[in-house]
Amino acid sequence: MSKEQFGKDGCNMNQRKGAQSLEFARAPYILEGACIVGKKEGEGPLGHLFDRVEEDPMFGMNTWEEAESTLQQQTLQLLLDKTKLTPGEVHYLFAGDLLGQLIATSFGVMSMEMPFFGIYGACSTMGEGLGLAAMSVAGGFAGKAIALASSHFASAEKTFRFPLDYGTQRPFSATWTVTGCGCVLLGEEKGFARITGITTGKIVDYGVKDSMNMGACMAPAAADTIYQNFMDFNRSDKDYDKIITGDLGYVGQTILLDLLKEKGYDIAKVHMDCGIEIFDNENQDTHCGGSGCGCSAATLCSYIFKQLRKNNWKRILFVPTGALLSPVSFNEGQSVPGIAHGVVIESV
Amino acid sequence: MSKEQFGKDGCNMNQRKGAQSLEFARAPYILEGACIVGKKEGEGPLGHLFDRVEEDPMFGMNTWEEAESTLQQQTLQLLLDKTKLTPGEVHYLFAGDLLGQLIATSFGVMSMEMPFFGIYGACSTMGEGLGLAAMSVAGGFAGKAIALASSHFASAEKTFRFPLDYGTQRPFSATWTVTGCGCVLLGEEKGFARITGITTGKIVDYGVKDSMNMGACMAPAAADTIYQNFMDFNRSDKDYDKIITGDLGYVGQTILLDLLKEKGYDIAKVHMDCGIEIFDNENQDTHCGGSGCGCSAATLCSYIFKQLRKNNWKRILFVPTGALLSPVSFNEGQSVPGIAHGVVIESV
Repeated sequence: MSKEQFGKDGCNMNQRKGAQSLEFARAPYILEGACIVGKKEGEGPLGHLFDRVEEDPMFGMNTWEEAESTLQQQTLQLLLDKTKLTPGEVHYLFAGDLLGQLIATSFGVMSMEMPFFGIYGACSTMGEGLGLAAMSVAGGFAGKAIALASSHFASAEKTFRFPLDYGTQRPFSATWTVTGCGCVLLGEEKGFARITGITTGKIVDYGVKDSMNMGACMAPAAADTIYQNFMDFNRSDKDYDKIITGDLGYVGQTILLDLLKEKGYDIAKVHMDCGIEIFDNENQDTHCGGSGCGCSAATLCSYIFKQLRKNNWKRILFVPTGALLSPVSFNEGQSVPGIAHGVVIESV
Repeated sequence: MSKEQFGKDGCNMNQRKGAQSLEFARAPYILEGACIVGKKEGEGPLGHLFDRVEEDPMFGMNTWEEAESTLQQQTLQLLLDKTKLTPGEVHYLFAGDLLGQLIATSFGVMSMEMPFFGIYGACSTMGEGLGLAAMSVAGGFAGKAIALASSHFASAEKTFRFPLDYGTQRPFSATWTVTGCGCVLLGEEKGFARITGITTGKIVDYGVKDSMNMGACMAPAAADTIYQNFMDFNRSDKDYDKIITGDLGYVGQTILLDLLKEKGYDIAKVHMDCGIEIFDNENQDTHCGGSGCGCSAATLCSYIFKQLRKNNWKRILFVPTGALLSPVSFNEGQSVPGIAHGVVIESV
């Protein structure tokens, strides 16, 4: 795609970069973030950085699904409180979760009455939401837009794994779904960082069928998107202070580093995985690490934003990864394809 | 939101209209559409207008989910064949279905390897996809983008209702899920119609809990979006040759007309519902009408596009409607909120 095609009238000089990437001419600003997590996440290494830690896993509700909806509603409200915005001042809300038909989101954001786009990218949802929200602001379609993603340990276990009461043993390759929600406000006026580009993921399937080894399912997609980002922007690991995947965990991280080495890039020094950071697997029995939409979303809105605000990191590549399975596809013997959406964030 | 805010540098003059709407300065063109439906849809009133009617409900596969994925894959391929495009020439694919975790879509579009945004809007998915795809082209982010939505009678019944083998009686307020897929190619070069504006829906919940009466669940959302479109664009039913809802069916249509009458608008003369058009309820035993993402998507790509190509309709408001429930939310006694996304389409 040539630049000219988008520059006709001297406007919309947003430049496509290669096959999957986009560089924003008017890079939208990140104005604020908000995140709420559960008790276990609050006891983890990043516990002191989250806006709020909720001790009650039910969030005062009667079902796990209502609990996750309430988590979303409260996180969205927290963002509005922080920014003193009314729901009416937010032009678009891009939000999603892991549950069938996005019910955590539908019932969670309903009361805000914001123009709403429901998105599903499994655990890559925050990456998908940031990409779309960035487009809506950079394109002049919205003055302010929000990207939101959540997951809840119990609603996810109920959906994808076994009833908790079974006390099923989890293999070491399994991850622990994060109870958490993160939401990010993008806008045109100056904020603490900017989304300068995105590399939108393709679905990548290596034929892995083990839903207890999500890292292996998602690592190829992460490698594909990171490599594509390097190609499209003519960059390498040296151009990023951090390359941050969502929830590959220890197993997935190893595979990711190997796959990129095969392509000639060693990102070991700059790679960080939110799933590895959010829990202390030694003492929290979380095995391979944390997972779920909420894992990368909450880590972004706490630890990552803090580093960007302090200018400790000038430019990062945020790459949430998603495993595109459902209980039905898994039970029918399908593989677990992955997708990863890259977001280039630069401190201001 | 003032126009100025988006006109700073004399670019991106896309004008926000009121609370929920957008008018595109560089309205993207509809270049082509493609649709494939099942046997029953082929026997309906619009049967002769679909690109292809597949006699085999399994689409040659072993499961209903694989069948729907194949339906999507074949429809997408048909669009590429019609336009002589390669997958690499499509910058973004916005697609979704009704199944949990969008598996029909993930496995259906995977082989195309297009940069992919998974979207979930229940039966409003084509409206959501057209809005986002239009933004990506109008904002200069994509030269070409595709919006796709599908549904399959059997995979939907399996997900939301009862095993077909039960032969459960269906109340007259129930709709029949359409087996069909429609996809639309948007681009910058001249096509047969343009998307000149959108009115993005909010989630509307009147507390209706009957999943066998989706029309009643969705009608309030449709009324809300249509009324908002009138307000934002300062238009009325007289400014549209047709106002086309997705799958309200007979019950929902009655409610929609009543709700808009209460607000002072009688759209009876220009209203059309894809769910009512696609089946002959007298002879096909479809009760309230057709439903599912595929209902409005396939009708759009056949009957509706034909009228626009012939210039029989100059300007229409396409408003697919979605019922935001899941088997879990329904079984937990939750209501069924609705959402409707409005898309203004004008013939060229």
